[in-house]
Amino acid sequence: MTLGLGIDAGGTATRWRLVEEDGKCVAQGSVDPLTGHLFSAAAEDRARQIVDAMAKAVLHSGQPMGIVAGITGLTRDTPAEATMRALLGTAFNLAPAKVFVAEDMWIAYLSYFALGEGILIYSGTGSIGYYLSPDKEVIRVGGRGNLIDDGGSGFWIAREALKAILRTEEETPGEGWSTTLGTCMAGALGGTDWNVVRAFVYGGDRGKIGELARVVGDAAERGDKTAEGILRAAGTELARLANALFRRLAPRPVALVGGAFRIHPMIGDAFRRDLLAPVDVINSDVDAALTAGRLAALVR
Amino acid sequence: MTLGLGIDAGGTATRWRLVEEDGKCVAQGSVDPLTGHLFSAAAEDRARQIVDAMAKAVLHSGQPMGIVAGITGLTRDTPAEATMRALLGTAFNLAPAKVFVAEDMWIAYLSYFALGEGILIYSGTGSIGYYLSPDKEVIRVGGRGNLIDDGGSGFWIAREALKAILRTEEETPGEGWSTTLGTCMAGALGGTDWNVVRAFVYGGDRGKIGELARVVGDAAERGDKTAEGILRAAGTELARLANALFRRLAPRPVALVGGAFRIHPMIGDAFRRDLLAPVDVINSDVDAALTAGRLAALVR
Repeated sequence: MTLGLGIDAGGTATRWRLVEEDGKCVAQGSVDPLTGHLFSAAAEDRARQIVDAMAKAVLHSGQPMGIVAGITGLTRDTPAEATMRALLGTAFNLAPAKVFVAEDMWIAYLSYFALGEGILIYSGTGSIGYYLSPDKEVIRVGGRGNLIDDGGSGFWIAREALKAILRTEEETPGEGWSTTLGTCMAGALGGTDWNVVRAFVYGGDRGKIGELARVVGDAAERGDKTAEGILRAAGTELARLANALFRRLAPRPVALVGGAFRIHPMIGDAFRRDLLAPVDVINSDVDAALTAGRLAALVR
Repeated sequence: MTLGLGIDAGGTATRWRLVEEDGKCVAQGSVDPLTGHLFSAAAEDRARQIVDAMAKAVLHSGQPMGIVAGITGLTRDTPAEATMRALLGTAFNLAPAKVFVAEDMWIAYLSYFALGEGILIYSGTGSIGYYLSPDKEVIRVGGRGNLIDDGGSGFWIAREALKAILRTEEETPGEGWSTTLGTCMAGALGGTDWNVVRAFVYGGDRGKIGELARVVGDAAERGDKTAEGILRAAGTELARLANALFRRLAPRPVALVGGAFRIHPMIGDAFRRDLLAPVDVINSDVDAALTAGRLAALVR
């Protein structure tokens, strides 16, 4: 029986699936998060340790004949791609030709669409629009990171909420933190004192800030108008990404995916309302590691 | 002759002035930047080295009888304040009572106003509104850092410009970087490729991003409408800070200071236009280290 190994390495974990030719998953697990940012010897060492830990777990269940890995931040045709293929090849005793690595969005796209079929709009901590042409050319819009843009992402939603609360508080002291949104956020932050808020925001964990987006969803659920406005604006931001790709590629089906858009239906509603063309919008969750495993089981 | 030492430790350097009782500066110089973020033994060691280097230079010209230091990020009544006073006291052989340290905005305020007199609006890499009451109570608005807000700051101006260029480029490829603003920014960034832009923005130097605000000023000078719009919006953002303090304290004279508002007159024009009350607006530059030195020369 030929086995393929699929890997989906995102922000919080590296998920792996060992898959048979018929597409059935025979083993699965997850290890520490892996990134494509292999810019130092230390980063490479860290990646090797994670890959070795994964190999130990996987080989217990079977020897894959091919690997397909989607890894966040890994750009194709870079030294990092060669390094990652070599790490995986060595750990699994496979020739480099049997190891395929790409950025995680590449695999995510193929989880929803055939090449060139649709448009992927992803909103997690960051936000990006992604298209993979029949010739495997990638067109990206957004994905500029939280220092420039990332409109409609979890980070963006949390930041808009904090900004709104703090500005209200500055202009009319006492009226920012006492709103429903303010109360919900204060609970998540652990207080309303600027030292507490500052330590949370500037403590170095961007994902932790993105998590605050859930709190904005809770406040909207309880009828907070500011929270509702931010969530609708997030949908509009994400629709901008889709519309930019519509203009360049003609309208086609859209998959709206990632953790952030899921925090409240208002985001998806505003997204659909603001799309320039009436297209199918897919919201279902897929297992990108399983997709990668199925592709890997087809490696010859 | 009694000498006072004034220190202004900001983002790019620590400036010192040795001042006589009559207010005349007898020696001056600058050393590496010093911050009030003394959260680790390494940070404390680094601060000690800078203070020692400064002492070596200063004592060559004379022994100060008092020190007044404005240090960025240093909050009063914190362990960092005690540490900084001890460092300065030891290096200059002065009793702690002869050493006064405060955040840099404290000294900046006193450079323009008597206690409680006016409002200071500062726009550098970040932006903040600052008021020091007759009882030395501080009221701050803004100053939330670039991850939350800092509207109207150099960082904000640069970010709005990058965002505008990249969004235009995404929606109509070729039309973002080819504008006057795009051309100016590409020159400063060293290219238009996303890898180049990303390395510049995410390379870790926030001040370097703020420097790009100058480029937006240049583009506005050459008639770029997007750049002009961003600069006017920056003035509106800074006016928000002043208006928030007007509402809480009643209107009073404003000093609009810092490197960012200086990049183009449009910022100050929009600022004045959007103020809720007609007040005097001071734009002149002052030497905060000299102010600190004059205060220090009065220490008994």
